[in-house]
Amino acid sequence: MSGNSFGEVFRITTFGESHGTAVGVVIDGCPAGLELSEADVQRELDRRRPGQSRVTTERGEPDRVAILSGLFEGRTTGTPIAMVLYNEDKDSKVYEAIKDTPRPNHADYTYQMKYGLRDWRGGGRSSGRETAGRVAAGAVAKKLLRGSGIEILGHTVRIHKIEAGDVTLDEIRRNPEENPVRCADLAAAKRMEEAIMKAKAEGDSVGGVVEVIALGAPPGLGEPVFDKLDADIAKALMSIGAVKGVEIGAGFAVAGKRGSENNDEFALAEGRVVTKTNNSGGIQGGISNGMPIVVRAAVKPTSSIAREQGTVDLQKMEETRIKITGRHDPCIVPRVLPVCEAMTAIVLADHLLRNRAAKV
Amino acid sequence: MSGNSFGEVFRITTFGESHGTAVGVVIDGCPAGLELSEADVQRELDRRRPGQSRVTTERGEPDRVAILSGLFEGRTTGTPIAMVLYNEDKDSKVYEAIKDTPRPNHADYTYQMKYGLRDWRGGGRSSGRETAGRVAAGAVAKKLLRGSGIEILGHTVRIHKIEAGDVTLDEIRRNPEENPVRCADLAAAKRMEEAIMKAKAEGDSVGGVVEVIALGAPPGLGEPVFDKLDADIAKALMSIGAVKGVEIGAGFAVAGKRGSENNDEFALAEGRVVTKTNNSGGIQGGISNGMPIVVRAAVKPTSSIAREQGTVDLQKMEETRIKITGRHDPCIVPRVLPVCEAMTAIVLADHLLRNRAAKV
Amino acid sequence: MSGNSFGEVFRITTFGESHGTAVGVVIDGCPAGLELSEADVQRELDRRRPGQSRVTTERGEPDRVAILSGLFEGRTTGTPIAMVLYNEDKDSKVYEAIKDTPRPNHADYTYQMKYGLRDWRGGGRSSGRETAGRVAAGAVAKKLLRGSGIEILGHTVRIHKIEAGDVTLDEIRRNPEENPVRCADLAAAKRMEEAIMKAKAEGDSVGGVVEVIALGAPPGLGEPVFDKLDADIAKALMSIGAVKGVEIGAGFAVAGKRGSENNDEFALAEGRVVTKTNNSGGIQGGISNGMPIVVRAAVKPTSSIAREQGTVDLQKMEETRIKITGRHDPCIVPRVLPVCEAMTAIVLADHLLRNRAAKV
Amino acid sequence: MSGNSFGEVFRITTFGESHGTAVGVVIDGCPAGLELSEADVQRELDRRRPGQSRVTTERGEPDRVAILSGLFEGRTTGTPIAMVLYNEDKDSKVYEAIKDTPRPNHADYTYQMKYGLRDWRGGGRSSGRETAGRVAAGAVAKKLLRGSGIEILGHTVRIHKIEAGDVTLDEIRRNPEENPVRCADLAAAKRMEEAIMKAKAEGDSVGGVVEVIALGAPPGLGEPVFDKLDADIAKALMSIGAVKGVEIGAGFAVAGKRGSENNDEFALAEGRVVTKTNNSGGIQGGISNGMPIVVRAAVKPTSSIAREQGTVDLQKMEETRIKITGRHDPCIVPRVLPVCEAMTAIVLADHLLRNRAAKV
Repeated sequence: MSGNSFGEVFRITTFGESHGTAVGVVIDGCPAGLELSEADVQRELDRRRPGQSRVTTERGEPDRVAILSGLFEGRTTGTPIAMVLYNEDKDSKVYEAIKDTPRPNHADYTYQMKYGLRDWRGGGRSSGRETAGRVAAGAVAKKLLRGSGIEILGHTVRIHKIEAGDVTLDEIRRNPEENPVRCADLAAAKRMEEAIMKAKAEGDSVGGVVEVIALGAPPGLGEPVFDKLDADIAKALMSIGAVKGVEIGAGFAVAGKRGSENNDEFALAEGRVVTKTNNSGGIQGGISNGMPIVVRAAVKPTSSIAREQGTVDLQKMEETRIKITGRHDPCIVPRVLPVCEAMTAIVLADHLLRNRAAKV
Repeated sequence: MSGNSFGEVFRITTFGESHGTAVGVVIDGCPAGLELSEADVQRELDRRRPGQSRVTTERGEPDRVAILSGLFEGRTTGTPIAMVLYNEDKDSKVYEAIKDTPRPNHADYTYQMKYGLRDWRGGGRSSGRETAGRVAAGAVAKKLLRGSGIEILGHTVRIHKIEAGDVTLDEIRRNPEENPVRCADLAAAKRMEEAIMKAKAEGDSVGGVVEVIALGAPPGLGEPVFDKLDADIAKALMSIGAVKGVEIGAGFAVAGKRGSENNDEFALAEGRVVTKTNNSGGIQGGISNGMPIVVRAAVKPTSSIAREQGTVDLQKMEETRIKITGRHDPCIVPRVLPVCEAMTAIVLADHLLRNRAAKV
Repeated sequence: MSGNSFGEVFRITTFGESHGTAVGVVIDGCPAGLELSEADVQRELDRRRPGQSRVTTERGEPDRVAILSGLFEGRTTGTPIAMVLYNEDKDSKVYEAIKDTPRPNHADYTYQMKYGLRDWRGGGRSSGRETAGRVAAGAVAKKLLRGSGIEILGHTVRIHKIEAGDVTLDEIRRNPEENPVRCADLAAAKRMEEAIMKAKAEGDSVGGVVEVIALGAPPGLGEPVFDKLDADIAKALMSIGAVKGVEIGAGFAVAGKRGSENNDEFALAEGRVVTKTNNSGGIQGGISNGMPIVVRAAVKPTSSIAREQGTVDLQKMEETRIKITGRHDPCIVPRVLPVCEAMTAIVLADHLLRNRAAKV
Repeated sequence: MSGNSFGEVFRITTFGESHGTAVGVVIDGCPAGLELSEADVQRELDRRRPGQSRVTTERGEPDRVAILSGLFEGRTTGTPIAMVLYNEDKDSKVYEAIKDTPRPNHADYTYQMKYGLRDWRGGGRSSGRETAGRVAAGAVAKKLLRGSGIEILGHTVRIHKIEAGDVTLDEIRRNPEENPVRCADLAAAKRMEEAIMKAKAEGDSVGGVVEVIALGAPPGLGEPVFDKLDADIAKALMSIGAVKGVEIGAGFAVAGKRGSENNDEFALAEGRVVTKTNNSGGIQGGISNGMPIVVRAAVKPTSSIAREQGTVDLQKMEETRIKITGRHDPCIVPRVLPVCEAMTAIVLADHLLRNRAAKV
C-alpha cells in the first residue's frame, strides 16, 4: 500500500536512502532451485553504477552486493532473497544548505508536503540510488527468464535530438555495452556522446529514449483487464524517477495510423503462428502473442544542472535562487537503461509464474 | 492476481463478457457517507455507450446500471458497491463463423493460447464492453474526488493526422461534450470528424490521442518508488485495450529537451508554492505537487475493419483470410476518453485515501 | 484493504446486504477449463439456506443463484465468475424500531461507530446472509479440489454440552446430511437436537463446535511464515461472524501435552511417508504433510434471542432494554458448517494454485 | 503471494534463515513522524532471545538489531524501515547428519516436499529465529499504538497442566517480566517452572497457553467480512510455528454456553458505551467495540526433544530412528509470548491505519 513493493508472485520490496546506512531489496516468490550467485547480481549492478564513463557522473561507488538469505548451496530455496548494498560514508553538508529550498524537478518539495519531514541528504529515498535494489532483483529475474528461454535486450534509441538508425537484433545484442551511451547504432552513438558533452560543458543536461526488447516470451503471459502485460510494464517503467512516457510496439505512432496499416496480420512461420508486422509490440489484449515484446521509455534530462534556478524557501515562504553543486550525470539515459531492463524482466518473471495458474 | 481488480484502498473488480449475461463491477473501499445515486453513474455510462453519433458504432445499447449493494438512504455505507449492466440478447452467430480464425489485433489468439478455450462471442471478456464497469466505478470516484475539490477533465487532442490547437481550461470544460469527437478545439473537431468519416467510407479506422487533466489535487498524493502517482496512472490507462502509449506532462518531448528547458522552477502565487511551467505534469518524484495533473494516452485505430485481412485457421493450422462484418466504431477515441477519465479518477481516489496513512 | 476479498490466486469478493437488492460474489482466479454449472453451486447453497429444519430458523428463502459471467459452454473461462442471489422483498419495519438500540453481540454498535451510518435492515452487511456468497464460491473451490483428488468433509462435534463420540471417516461422509444438526454420531445427534429445542422453548440459543476435514491434499500446500496453511484457515474460519475460536489437529489440547506425546512420528505406509499420529492436523511448519487436514471452529450461540436484554439508546445516550422479535435460529451451528467447509475449500484451492509457483 | 509479508498498510516482510547470513524485516507503511530508536527495538528483542533463563534454551545469542533505513533524526520518514540481525557463526554439522531424516513435528519434511530442496541448517527458514523479525516490527507497531493510547499486554495463562488463577490487569502489567514463565499469577508461576524443569530432566518438553490483551483500542478497528479484526489476529497468531489454536474472548467456551449467558449487554459507564461482560473479547462483527481485546493462543510442546523418535530416511525411503542432540527450549511458551504480542500489535497498527479510510 505504501508503494515500496512490486509484483504479485515474483515480488520485490526495496528499501534505503541515498545517504542512509544501506539500500537493498527483498525478493519474495522466486521459485526454489534456481542457480544464483552474488556474481550474477554484481554484473548487472556494475552496469548501473555511477562513474562508468565521462557521459555519466564521475562519482565512484563500488556498490558491492551481499545476499543475506534465500540461497543454499548455490541455489534459491524458495524463501526470501534479501540483498543489501551498504552506502559509503558521504558528506551531506552540501545538502543541508539547500534543505529548505526544493530543487526543481526533484522530489524535495513533494516528499516534504507528503510526510511533513524528509531525509534531505542526497535526495534520500527519492535518489536514483534506490534503483540499485531494482537492478539486483532484475538480475535474478533475468536468470529465471533465461531458464525459460526469454532474453532481455536494451539499447538507447535517442539522446536529445539524435535518433539511432535502424539496427538489427544482432547489433542490439552486441553494441550497447561497447559505447558509453549504450546505443546499438555506433555512428549515432558518437554524436549522442558529443551532444551530452556539449550540454555538460554548458552546465546543462539532456534526455533521451530507451528501448527494451524481450525475445522468446511464449504466448499467454499477461492477465486480462487491469494486469495486462503492457499495463504492468508501463507501470514498471513509469515508476522509474526519470521516465515521463512509455509506449508499446508502434506506441504513439498508432495515433496517426489507420487500422489497415496498424493491424498485424497473422501468418504461419515454421509451423508457428506469427504476425507479419509487430505494431502490437508482442502484446495483444494485454497478453503476449509470441512475437518480440518491444517497449520504449522517454527519459527526462537530469534535473540536477549547474545553472542557477528559481525556487522557494519553504521556511521563509519567499522566492529565492538555487545553485546545485557537486557532480551529476549530464545524461542519465545510459544508466536508466539497465533499470528499464530490470523492471521489464521483473514484470515478465512475475507473469511467467502467474500464468501457471491459468488452466486447470 | 488474475488481473480483474485495480486499486488498493478504492479497489474495483470488474466482471462479465460481451455476450454473456451481464457485465459489472464491485467497488470495495469507497468510504461511508458519500451521496450517490444510480443517476450519477448512468450519466457517465451514457458518455461511453455505443450509438452516440455517426463517428462511433451505430449499435445501440441502453446500458442501464443497477446498484445492488452498498447504498442506504442515498449514501454509501462503506461496504462493497456492486453494479451490474445486463446484456441484451445478442446474435453470436457471426462470431461462431470466425471462432477459429483470430481477428488481427484483437485478443482472440492470445486468450486462446492462455486459457485453451475462450468465449468467442463478441470478443468475450476482451470486448470493450468490459470498460462499462470501469466507467461506472469512475463515476463514483469522480463524486468522491469532487468532495475533495478535485475535478477531472478530458478531451481529444488528436485524431489521425489532425491535432487540436491550444485550448484553455474553460474550453476543455465546455466544448468536448458538444461535438462527436470530444475535442475542445471546435475547428479541429470538424476536421477530425471528417477524417473519421473518410476512413469509415473506405472500410477503415483511425486512431488518436486523448488528454486527461486533474485540477485541484493537493500536494502529497502518490506513493514513492513503485506506486508513484504517474506509474499508477500509466498502468490504469495502458490497461485499456486500445491504448498503446502513455505520457505525463511534457511526456516523450522531454527526450529532446535540455534540463534547463525542462525543469519547472518553483515560485509563489497567492501564498502557495507553484511551478512556473508544468513539464512535470503535476507530479514530481511520483507525488502530486499541487499543479494540474496532465496525462495523455495514444489510442490505436479500431482493430475491427471492413477490409479483408490475413489470419490463420487455428484448427487446420493454415493461413487464410478473414472479413469482419457487422457495425464497428470507425474511431474509438471519443468513447475511450470517458474510460481514460474514469481510470484516472479511480487512481486519484485511491491515492487520496492511501495518503491518509502518510503521517502519524 | 476494506476486507471484502479473500484469497490470493483463487480470490473471492463478496457483496450485498441482508435487505438490499442482492448478495453475491465474484471469483477471480478460477482456472480455465473447470466444468461448472449453476446446479453445482445451488446444491451447496441449499445446505446453508434457512428453513431446512426445526432446529434452524423457519424463515424460508429460496436463494436461487445466477451465474452472470465466467462460464462458456459449461466450463470456466479463466475470467471472473460473478454469482448473484437476489433478496426477496423483506419487511424492514421491525428493524427500524431498534435502529438506535444496538442488539447485544451483533455488529450494530461497531458498524455504527466505524462508518457513522449503517444499513440497519436485518443486520445489513453483517448479516449471516453475506455467507451465501462464500458458500457459492466454496462450491466452485470444492469442484476444483475434487479434480485434484481433494475431498472436504464436515460435521458437528458438539452442541452445547453434548459432544459427539468417536466416528469413522465413513460415518462423517454419510451421516451429517441425514440429521438436522449435521452430526456424524447419530445417537449424539438426537440429544443435540433436544438441547436445541429446549433452548428454543426457553427463548434462548446454544453454541457448538464443528470440524472440517480435508482428505487427499498433497504434501507441499501452504506458504511458510505468514501465509501458513493453518494460518490462512484460521483466518478463513474466524472471519465467519459466529466463530470465536479455531484449532488445528490436537489444537488447545497441545497445551496439556508433552512433546513426546504430541510429536507425530514419521513412518512408511504403502511406500508413502505418513505420520503415526496426526496431532499436527496434517500441517507442519504451515505446510500440508499429506495427512488429513483437521480443523475445528467454536460457534457461539445465536445472538438473537427472544429474551429481553440490556442495551443503550445511542441517540439519547441512555441505558434501555431491547426485545428482539422475529424468527431466529436457536442454534446456528448446522448452518455455519457449510460455510466452514466452503472457507476451508477456498483456502485449499488458493494454496493448490499458489503452490504451482514453488519450484523452477 | 509467497507468504513472507503480513499486513496491508503497516506491512512487514521478514527474511532470513537460522544459519544463513542474517535474519531481518522490512516494514513498509509506518507513518512518518514516529519517534523511534534501535533501543526501542532491542528492548523487545531481548525478551525473545534465547538464554534468558533455565526454562528456555541455554544457547546465548546477542541478537543486536541494526536499522538500515527509514529513520532520520530520530523519526520515521514514511519510507521502508529495514532491520537486520546478523547470525553468529554456527556449527551446522549436527544438522548435516540428520538432513535426510525429518525431525517429527518440524517443517523438515514439508519444506523438502514443497521446494525439492531446503536449507537444513538449524531448521533454515522454518526456525523460530525467523520470529526475531516479527518482534522487531512489533516493537515499532507497539510504539505507534502507544501514541494512540493503545497498550499491549501479555502473560502466560497455562503451562502443561498448571493453569494461572484470576489476575488483575495490574498484575498482568507488573508480574510477567519478573518470572521466567511470564505468568502474572506468581504462585502458579512457581509450579509452572517446576513442571518445565521436570520435563526437561526427563528429556521432554511441555506446552501451554498465552493470553494477549490490548487496552485502549477505540471502537471501529477491523474491516467487515474477511479482514475482521479477530480473523486477522487469528491468522497472525496461528502463523507462529508453535501455535495450534487461537480463541477470542470466551473462545471455545462459547460452545457450551447459551445466548443469554454469552451475550454482552450494553451499558453506559462515564458517558461511554461499554458492555457489562466481555465474552466478545472486545470485537463484535469483526470490529473493535472499545472493550479490552482478549485473545489466547495454544502453544505446543517444543518439537525438539532429547528422546529417540521414529522417522523415515527420505533418501533410502526406509523407517529409522532419530535422536536430536543440542540444547533446546524445554518449553517455548515464555519466548512465544513476545511474538504473540508483536503479531497482535502489528494487526492493530495495521487496522488503526486502515480505519482512516472508513469515512468520507
